Amino acid sequence: MNKPTSQHEFETPKVTTGPLPSSRKVYTHPVADPSLSVPRREIDLHPSANEPPVPVYDTSGPYSDPSVIIDVEKGLPRIRDGWVQARSNVEEYEGRPIKIEDNGGATGKHLAREFPTKHKPLRGVGDGPITQYEFAKAGIITKEMIYIAERENMGRKEAVANAAETVAQGESFGAEIPEFITPEFVRDEVARGRAVIPSNINHPELEPQIIGRNFLVKINANIGNSAVTSSVEEEVEKMVWATRWGADNVMDLSTGRNIHNTREWILRNSPVPIGTVPIYQALEKVNGIAEDLTWEVYRDTLIEQCEQGVDYFTIHAGVRLAYIHLTVNRVCGIVSRGGSIMAKWMLTHHKESFLYTHFEEICDIMRKYDVTFSLGDGLRPGAVADANDRAQFAELETLGELTKIAWDKGCQVMIEGPGHVPMHKIKVNMTKQLKECGEAPFYTLGPLTTDIAPGYDHITSGIGAAMIGWYGTAMLCYVTPKEHLGLPNRDDVKVGVITYRLAAHAADLAKGHPAAQIRDDAVSRARFDFRWEDQFNLALDPETARDFHDQTLPKDAHKVA
Amino acid sequence: MNKPTSQHEFETPKVTTGPLPSSRKVYTHPVADPSLSVPRREIDLHPSANEPPVPVYDTSGPYSDPSVIIDVEKGLPRIRDGWVQARSNVEEYEGRPIKIEDNGGATGKHLAREFPTKHKPLRGVGDGPITQYEFAKAGIITKEMIYIAERENMGRKEAVANAAETVAQGESFGAEIPEFITPEFVRDEVARGRAVIPSNINHPELEPQIIGRNFLVKINANIGNSAVTSSVEEEVEKMVWATRWGADNVMDLSTGRNIHNTREWILRNSPVPIGTVPIYQALEKVNGIAEDLTWEVYRDTLIEQCEQGVDYFTIHAGVRLAYIHLTVNRVCGIVSRGGSIMAKWMLTHHKESFLYTHFEEICDIMRKYDVTFSLGDGLRPGAVADANDRAQFAELETLGELTKIAWDKGCQVMIEGPGHVPMHKIKVNMTKQLKECGEAPFYTLGPLTTDIAPGYDHITSGIGAAMIGWYGTAMLCYVTPKEHLGLPNRDDVKVGVITYRLAAHAADLAKGHPAAQIRDDAVSRARFDFRWEDQFNLALDPETARDFHDQTLPKDAHKVA
Repeated sequence: MNKPTSQHEFETPKVTTGPLPSSRKVYTHPVADPSLSVPRREIDLHPSANEPPVPVYDTSGPYSDPSVIIDVEKGLPRIRDGWVQARSNVEEYEGRPIKIEDNGGATGKHLAREFPTKHKPLRGVGDGPITQYEFAKAGIITKEMIYIAERENMGRKEAVANAAETVAQGESFGAEIPEFITPEFVRDEVARGRAVIPSNINHPELEPQIIGRNFLVKINANIGNSAVTSSVEEEVEKMVWATRWGADNVMDLSTGRNIHNTREWILRNSPVPIGTVPIYQALEKVNGIAEDLTWEVYRDTLIEQCEQGVDYFTIHAGVRLAYIHLTVNRVCGIVSRGGSIMAKWMLTHHKESFLYTHFEEICDIMRKYDVTFSLGDGLRPGAVADANDRAQFAELETLGELTKIAWDKGCQVMIEGPGHVPMHKIKVNMTKQLKECGEAPFYTLGPLTTDIAPGYDHITSGIGAAMIGWYGTAMLCYVTPKEHLGLPNRDDVKVGVITYRLAAHAADLAKGHPAAQIRDDAVSRARFDFRWEDQFNLALDPETARDFHDQTLPKDAHKVA
Repeated sequence: MNKPTSQHEFETPKVTTGPLPSSRKVYTHPVADPSLSVPRREIDLHPSANEPPVPVYDTSGPYSDPSVIIDVEKGLPRIRDGWVQARSNVEEYEGRPIKIEDNGGATGKHLAREFPTKHKPLRGVGDGPITQYEFAKAGIITKEMIYIAERENMGRKEAVANAAETVAQGESFGAEIPEFITPEFVRDEVARGRAVIPSNINHPELEPQIIGRNFLVKINANIGNSAVTSSVEEEVEKMVWATRWGADNVMDLSTGRNIHNTREWILRNSPVPIGTVPIYQALEKVNGIAEDLTWEVYRDTLIEQCEQGVDYFTIHAGVRLAYIHLTVNRVCGIVSRGGSIMAKWMLTHHKESFLYTHFEEICDIMRKYDVTFSLGDGLRPGAVADANDRAQFAELETLGELTKIAWDKGCQVMIEGPGHVPMHKIKVNMTKQLKECGEAPFYTLGPLTTDIAPGYDHITSGIGAAMIGWYGTAMLCYVTPKEHLGLPNRDDVKVGVITYRLAAHAADLAKGHPAAQIRDDAVSRARFDFRWEDQFNLALDPETARDFHDQTLPKDAHKVA
C-alpha cells in the first residue's frame, strides 16, 4: 500500500453494519453440541403472505446482528479459541518476530498501525490429529463439523419435504448430495478429501464453513490493496462489504507495503476464511525481483502468515520447469501472476520450482496450523484460444500428484482451475480435475466463456461459473465488471458478489440441492401476489431491486408493505 | 401512449448516428449478384499490431455510416422495393383505410403525427411463390438469400483457415454448421424450415437477415411505448439505439394509444426485422376488455400490420382451452400477456381460441405479405417451479402441429420458448422443440435460471440464453436489468443487448462456428500486447470498457494509440 499513512492518522475502519431489509439473525444450537450457536438469516414476509420466514445461508458474520457491538479495534469474538485450545496437541508459543520487510519496508509515517492486540500464535505438535482432515480420518467429529452440518441445513432438524424427489430430479454428474446433512456426513466427506474446512487454528474468529461439491456451492471475493490505491481501512470494509452480500470467502491479494499489518486487521475482523497467495508477499520482501526469491524467504513468509491465521494458501507448485515451454505458442502466455513469477525464477536459474522441490516441507508447515492448500493453476489459460491446452492439463496432472502427497501429510487440499474456457470445453475441465485430483474440491475463476466483452466479464464468466458449478465445482472465484480493465470499487465488488451468488445458486438448483428452490418459490409467490416488498426483501440485492422499481413505477401504489 | 402529443408539438425523432470507435462501414458485392451491397463493420487496429481489420457482423444499418444522410422524416432507403416489385405475383393496392381505433381512439392533440409519406401496400397474388419459404421450396434463390450468405460470411469469399477443424471441435448437438455459407445453403435451410428470413414485402427498408441454428445466433430487443411513459420519438430512437449495440431484431410491444402511428415511424426507419404481438393492438381496439375480442377485430389488425410491413407476428395459437386447467397448480399461473388474454377470452366464452380455430385463415393472410410466424408460448413458465410442466409441453406439441399447417400454407415459422427454467431442465426444451416442431427455429426468452435475483435478471437469463443458444436456439430474446421491476431506460436497453450479444457469441463459439473466435483472438492479442485502445475498440461495448479503465488507471500511460 503506497498511500501515505501514519500511526496517528490511522482511522479505525468504518464498516457496514446492520441487518438487511426485513431480515433477522437467528442462531440455532445443534443437538450434537448445544453449546454452539450457528447463524442464519431469516427474511420475514408480509402478513398477507401467510408464510413462515424464509431461511437463507448467512455469510455476513456478527456485522449484520444489531445486538452485537462491533469494535474493529478489538476484532470479532474468538469463538473457536476454546475449541482449539481444548485439543491436546496444540501449543501456544512466542511466534516469529515481525520484521520490517513483512510490511514491505514501510516505516515511520508510511507504516500502517499495528492491530492493537497481539495474540500469541498456536501450533500443532506431535503426530496426533491437528487438521480437520486428520480428525476426520481418525473418525473424530469436530465442533467445526457439527457447526457446518447445522449451517448447511440452515437450522432445519430434518430434511425438507420432497427432498428425495428433488435430489433425484437434479443432475449432479456423480455428486452425492444428501437429503439432509449430518455431522457424520461432513466428517466422511472431509475424510475422503472431497470437502475442506479452511480454518487455521490461529483464526478463531472464523464461522466454520465447508467447501465441497456435495454442499452448497461457495463463492470467493478478492480484495487487497495495491501500489495504486486503497488503505487498510478500505480493505477491512471491503471484506465486510463482500461478505455482507454473500462472499463465503475472501482472498487478500495485497501487494506493495503494509501487507502484514493490513492482513492482521482483516483477519481479526473476518468471520469468513481468508486466503492469500504467499508468493506475492515473498516477492515484496525481495523488492519485486522474481529471480531473487529463495526457498528461505518463502518459507519464512508461510510461517508468518500461518501464525497470523490465514486459512488457505494458493501455492503454484504445479508449475514445473518442463511445462513452461508448452506455453510459447499461446495467444496469452502465462497470465497467472504466481505462475509468471515462478516461471521467471525457473527460467533464470534453470532449476525446478522450489515450491515443487520443497513441497513436503510446505505440507509439514501448513499441517501444524491447519492451513488448507489451494493448489494454484499457474498455467491457466488467459484466452479462450489457450483453453484446455497441454500446458494447462500437464499442470493439472501434477496438482493431482501433489494432492496425494498433501493428503498423506495430513493436509486439506483444494485445486484451482481456469480461467478462460468456451462453453463446450468447460465440462472436461471438471471431469479431468475429479479424476486427476481424487475428487478434491475444485475452485475455479469463472471461467470466462468469451473474450469480446471487457466491462461485462462478470457476465461472460458468470455463465461459465454457473455451468462449472453445476458440473461439480465447489467454489467459484468471482470476477467483477472491472476485470482486465482496472481496480474494482465498492459497487463493482457488490456486482461481482451478487453475480456469483446467483450463479452458485443456479448451480445448486440444477444439482438438485433439496432446499435451494425454497427461496425461488418464495420470490415467485411474492411476484404472483404483487407483494413487491417481499419480492425486494427476498432478492439477493434488495436495494437494487427496490431502486429499479421506484425509478419508473409509482412509489406506493404498486407495493404491499 | 398516453403522454399528450400533438401535430405541431411532434418533434422529428433524434437518433444516434455515427460509427463506433475505430470502425468503418464496408459494403461488399456478392458474386452471385454484384448489384447487392452487403454491410459489415470493420474495426481498425493500431499499426503496431500489424494485423488486418477485424470484420464484425453489423446490425446497425445506415445509422452508423457517416456517408449516409439520415432523415427520419423520409425513412431509410427502400432497398428491397425493386427486388419485390420485380416479382410477377405481387400487386400494389389501396390498402385498408386507417381507422380511429388503430391509434387507440387518439384524436386531436393526443394523436401522434402520421409518418409524412404514405406508401401503398403490396400483397402477393396467385399460387406462385410469395414467401421466402415458397421460393426456397421451388428451388429459387432470392436476392435476400444471396445477401444473407454474404452477410453471414462477413464478406469472406471463402472459408477461414482451419474451418473444418473448428467445426469438428465444436459441439453443436446435431446442427449442421457449414464451413462457409453459400446462397444455396441458405435456400436449402429455408426450404427445410430450419431457418427463416423475416421480411415482409412491405418492409423494403430491411437489411435481410436469417434466423436458424446453422447460422450466427441472433438476439432480439423489445421496445414499445406504454400507458406509463414514452413517446413516438423515444421509440424510434430506442430501435436505433438497440440495433447500434447489436440487436438483430426488435419487437414493438406498444400498448395504449398511437400504436399505429408509432409503428409506422419505427418501420420506415428500421433496418432490422420488426415483430409485434397483434393481440395487444386488437385488445386496445376493444378497450382492453379481453372478452370483447373477436376474430374480426383480430383479423383486421393482422391486415393493418401486414400492410405496414411488420416482419413477424407472435401468435399464441397453441394456448388451447383444454390446457388452461393444467396451469391451476402453478406457482405463477400464466405469465405471458398474450396467453393470459386468450385464456380469459376462452374461459369467458368457454370456446376454443379463435387463433386456433382460424389458424388456416391466419396463414393465408400472412402468406400474402410474407409475414413470419413466431408461434407464441402463452403457457411458458413464469417461475422455475413451473418449468417443463404439462401445460408448457402440451402447448409446445400443439405448436408442432401448427408449424406443419403453416408450412403447408407456404409460411415461414419460428417457435417461441421459455421463460424460467433451471439449468438442468433447459436441454430437454431444445430437444423437444426440435422434435415436435420439425426443426423450425427456436426463439427463447432467456431462460432465467433462478428467480432470486431481481435487478440482475439480464444475468440470470443470460446464463440460460448462452446455454440454450449453444444447444440450438436460433434467436435469444433479451432481458434487461429492469425485468420484473420496471420499464427499461436507455442504459438498461444497452446492458440487455450487450449481455445477449455476449451470450449469443459464447454460443457461436461453443457450437464451433468457424469464424467466431477471430474476434476473441484479436482481443486476446491486444490484451497480451497492452494495446489498450485496440482492446476497447474490439469490445462489444467500447465506451464502457474505456470508461472502466480510465476510472482507476492513468489515462495515457497505460495505453497505446
